[in-house]
Amino acid sequence: MITSNDNAAVKHLSLLLKKTKARKESGTYIVEGIRMFREVPEDIIEKIYVSESFAEKNSDTLSGRDYEIMSDKVFSHVSDTVTPQGIMAVVKMKKHTLEDMFPKNEEPFIVLIDGLQDPGNLGTIIRCGEAAGISGVIMSRDTVDIYNPKTVRSTMGSLLRVPHMITDDIAALAEDLKKRGFTVVATELGAEKNYDEVDYRKPTAIFIGNEGNGLSKEALDAANERIIIPMCGKVESLNAAIAASVCMYEARRQRRNV
Amino acid sequence: MITSNDNAAVKHLSLLLKKTKARKESGTYIVEGIRMFREVPEDIIEKIYVSESFAEKNSDTLSGRDYEIMSDKVFSHVSDTVTPQGIMAVVKMKKHTLEDMFPKNEEPFIVLIDGLQDPGNLGTIIRCGEAAGISGVIMSRDTVDIYNPKTVRSTMGSLLRVPHMITDDIAALAEDLKKRGFTVVATELGAEKNYDEVDYRKPTAIFIGNEGNGLSKEALDAANERIIIPMCGKVESLNAAIAASVCMYEARRQRRNV
Repeated sequence: MITSNDNAAVKHLSLLLKKTKARKESGTYIVEGIRMFREVPEDIIEKIYVSESFAEKNSDTLSGRDYEIMSDKVFSHVSDTVTPQGIMAVVKMKKHTLEDMFPKNEEPFIVLIDGLQDPGNLGTIIRCGEAAGISGVIMSRDTVDIYNPKTVRSTMGSLLRVPHMITDDIAALAEDLKKRGFTVVATELGAEKNYDEVDYRKPTAIFIGNEGNGLSKEALDAANERIIIPMCGKVESLNAAIAASVCMYEARRQRRNV
Repeated sequence: MITSNDNAAVKHLSLLLKKTKARKESGTYIVEGIRMFREVPEDIIEKIYVSESFAEKNSDTLSGRDYEIMSDKVFSHVSDTVTPQGIMAVVKMKKHTLEDMFPKNEEPFIVLIDGLQDPGNLGTIIRCGEAAGISGVIMSRDTVDIYNPKTVRSTMGSLLRVPHMITDDIAALAEDLKKRGFTVVATELGAEKNYDEVDYRKPTAIFIGNEGNGLSKEALDAANERIIIPMCGKVESLNAAIAASVCMYEARRQRRNV
């Protein structure tokens, strides 16, 4: 049993939780908590760590699995959560390609994320995106790390199921999608078209921008539909995850009602 | 200038930020940050506090106003934010009634909140609600305090504009609304009707439940329309603020397209 915070494994886990670079270099990230752990396919789990009291109470969950035990104190020290559930796994990142985002049974529906910074917003968009039936998420390099523990947690498992990739030039990728027949949609505060006046039943990509600054000029230029979510009262903008969800569910509404 | 954390005003501000009871007893709450401060009507401001460096740089904003200065250190100590902007106001709560939620130019559209616990979710719902044109928010007594500093902040000013009130019996209130001709809508995971199959152009009230447990039995019983937001993939539920926003914007879409 690991009983010291100075243990090499403990230090490695802390790095994987705190540093994007450590995650990128190892090609792994941390999944914490029992619900999400249960959804991780066995073949991408590199290592399982549990707290002493978790191991005592959950022999069923752990039966037939390799795992290492930490004292409750060490587990609390390394955990990213305020009330640790006592289980975390080191998980291998899955490599997805653009082709994974072309489903067989319906037209593709891709979310393009351009510089979003809040890990909770990103996770919430992926969770709601899976529910709204998106076929993939593509992020610009300067978007918050999708393997940030807060993002992982707020996806509630959708991270394991929604194809995702990072690109160095998201505007160029959008241009490429347009050539393949996609409608590339961007929200812009000055736009004249409402978000529900676009035909989302065709192959569609929706741009979501940065919380404070919105979309980059390159992204806006690459879009062939600029839309606005009309706002009553004196509201100046919507939270990024809310705006994304309203658009994604409008797309799903149209696709359901074909 | 206030230079000690032991100053009585500092202690009072801390209580107003941290304790629902202190807010309720005084009938006041704290608005922090320059953007939201600018939106507070002068007649409901009881007192303004600024940091020393804010006062030096913002004589325009403060011109003609009564305010008290704190040292930057004391301001940081009392502030609820990680990077304080240097201005906070003690603001009087506004008393709203049900009648305030009946607008002259369109049918009423009220959000009923039944036991929501996350302050950020509540604030986000009020912000998106104003944007979607709701006419009021009614909360059950066990809902998180609307004057919690995190809620106030995440409303981005909508708290000052959207009529809101608390009720001891939200199910009874829903029954009363039904008698007045309202459609009372509740989301329920087992429901057969999709959220976009309800006619929201009539007087409408939408129930939003607790993050973990959903709606109380009383609330569900009081509803005359039970709806579901259909979910693709393996998503079990949506974040409460996302679900509320999708429904509120579907209602607005219908009302726009009358």
